[in-house]
Amino acid sequence: MDTPVEVIQSVKLDDENSALILLDQTLLPNKKVFLKLIEMKDIWDAIYQLKVRGAPAIGIAAAYGVYLGTKQSSADSYDELYHDFLKVKEYLASSRPTAVNLFWALDRMDSRFQKEQGKSVQEVKLALKNESELIRTEDEWVCEAIGEYALALLEPGWGILTHCNAGTIATAKYGTALAPLYLGQARGYDFKVFADETRPLLQGARLTAWELKEAGIDVTLICDNMASIVMKEGKVQAVLVGCDRVAANGDTANKIGTSGVAILAKHYKVPFYVCAPLSTVDLECQTGDDIHIELRPDEEITTKWYSEPMAPVGVGTYNPAFDVTDHDLITGIITESGIAYAPFTESLPEMFQKKRFS
Amino acid sequence: MDTPVEVIQSVKLDDENSALILLDQTLLPNKKVFLKLIEMKDIWDAIYQLKVRGAPAIGIAAAYGVYLGTKQSSADSYDELYHDFLKVKEYLASSRPTAVNLFWALDRMDSRFQKEQGKSVQEVKLALKNESELIRTEDEWVCEAIGEYALALLEPGWGILTHCNAGTIATAKYGTALAPLYLGQARGYDFKVFADETRPLLQGARLTAWELKEAGIDVTLICDNMASIVMKEGKVQAVLVGCDRVAANGDTANKIGTSGVAILAKHYKVPFYVCAPLSTVDLECQTGDDIHIELRPDEEITTKWYSEPMAPVGVGTYNPAFDVTDHDLITGIITESGIAYAPFTESLPEMFQKKRFS
Repeated sequence: MDTPVEVIQSVKLDDENSALILLDQTLLPNKKVFLKLIEMKDIWDAIYQLKVRGAPAIGIAAAYGVYLGTKQSSADSYDELYHDFLKVKEYLASSRPTAVNLFWALDRMDSRFQKEQGKSVQEVKLALKNESELIRTEDEWVCEAIGEYALALLEPGWGILTHCNAGTIATAKYGTALAPLYLGQARGYDFKVFADETRPLLQGARLTAWELKEAGIDVTLICDNMASIVMKEGKVQAVLVGCDRVAANGDTANKIGTSGVAILAKHYKVPFYVCAPLSTVDLECQTGDDIHIELRPDEEITTKWYSEPMAPVGVGTYNPAFDVTDHDLITGIITESGIAYAPFTESLPEMFQKKRFS
Repeated sequence: MDTPVEVIQSVKLDDENSALILLDQTLLPNKKVFLKLIEMKDIWDAIYQLKVRGAPAIGIAAAYGVYLGTKQSSADSYDELYHDFLKVKEYLASSRPTAVNLFWALDRMDSRFQKEQGKSVQEVKLALKNESELIRTEDEWVCEAIGEYALALLEPGWGILTHCNAGTIATAKYGTALAPLYLGQARGYDFKVFADETRPLLQGARLTAWELKEAGIDVTLICDNMASIVMKEGKVQAVLVGCDRVAANGDTANKIGTSGVAILAKHYKVPFYVCAPLSTVDLECQTGDDIHIELRPDEEITTKWYSEPMAPVGVGTYNPAFDVTDHDLITGIITESGIAYAPFTESLPEMFQKKRFS
């Protein structure tokens, strides 16, 4: 019998109060504040200011947002309501124009609206509510499925190393790479988790260490450059990471530093798993060479977070947000349809054939 | 003809003013302040508060300090002067009881004092001054020799990656791992240097990036977890690091993260060199397993430098100050007597046979 683990839900609908409930991630780890957002302007601001982050969580927030904005409409016909819906959709879409999942969720809500052609205003509003809840629930299923497949690879008492944050606060629930840790916690696995702090933005220190500690999981924070010694000392039996994009050959783009962790894992013969919802697997993208790596500003390395500059003024930096881990460093890619092993060009398409959620 | 490169000397004797001149390294990179220290209490404080750091620099500061303290004595016999010398020696030795080089330098000054048996007070004071200057000069020779041997392995235009700070400010001049970069700069090598920031204490960001930039060398600051991508992108043709201790089999203890860089270098087929004065090579120590790794406090990872805590309060950390790089990851160990290659159990003792400086 599983012992329930309290997992933080960072995005929730409070329909009774016509509000979106958001965990303000910009205040972590020092303050745990849930925002209650009613006005569209406040929802827009929360997305714009990265109070919600993680592709799935942004999509869910946008779906709830466009539902709540449409719910406020006093339109009394399908067409009038659709007119108001489109205004809300366009407005929310402008909050973070590079977030793919934001558009995906808004478009899906739009399709649903159009499917309700001829229905009453009340019926359409209910359909939008249901669609937004379905978006959230499907993400929860995806995370849970990834968690179950991943957990089957792990043994009680293992040390698990993770990089960046692919956790519950970035998704509907459980996260991707952290999902097996939450499921394992409920079943007494007693994992010892090592969280890379993940410079320069410290998502590991601020978010992963925080959410695992909140759930009562044994987590040890390390600097990125300590991954080698913890593996060498036999403290790590598996590495689990999330991903931003997986190419058809299995090459995986994820937070900067992931490829280094994979190379260390190979050296120390520790299995290295990528947890990837199929929404991040892009079969159109042949290899990692086709993935564009975003370069970010110097200040993230030289001054951000610090009470004074921590590098000489004007020094050049190289600050790529992501790197690509070669497929031959990856033991398996864990999706909601199962685990893909090499050759990934064959196993990844099979995962899509078994896909269960939209 | 070499173009002179202005290299910062972090420790100098100003005998005319009976003062020790120290670059206050705790204020870097934001302020470049040279302290002029006359009172023994101020010299003690500077060592205690880590205003001077790096084993050679600490030794030089202690040698100058014990000379200056003895110079102040009004003793008028050899024996009285030796009594005063021992008081100063004991006092300075208490400033940083774990710094091996501090004791080494003070003991060497003591031996010199004892060799001057029967000499006049003035003659002994001059001998101590000469010995302290010799300690400084020998370190300069050691650094320069390491720099020349290392430079012979490098080619103009190469990208060089380094970790932590093994630079001029830690030594008499030139540093160890950075010595070939200064010599190369004087000869138009146009190296592109990548400096790992080196968490948690950021010696790469605060010190290495600073001193290379001051010397006009092309330096790019990266987070530790970016070493993989810069190697993958072909930006690095050699890695140069310093060391704290080298065992008889070539296993090398150096700043935390060094072993990870070595594994990445091996993966990407980039040569990995350790720059090691013979004073750091310990033939009594059989392998890296015999090297004790110091564990340091949580706060260095969770709160130090930051304007607010960057990890959840009370989260556990693992914070080893050093790691050991296995000898089979090391392309060569560059000493002041030449370059040792595998098998190191044979090549390292040969370096001692060729040793030129004490």
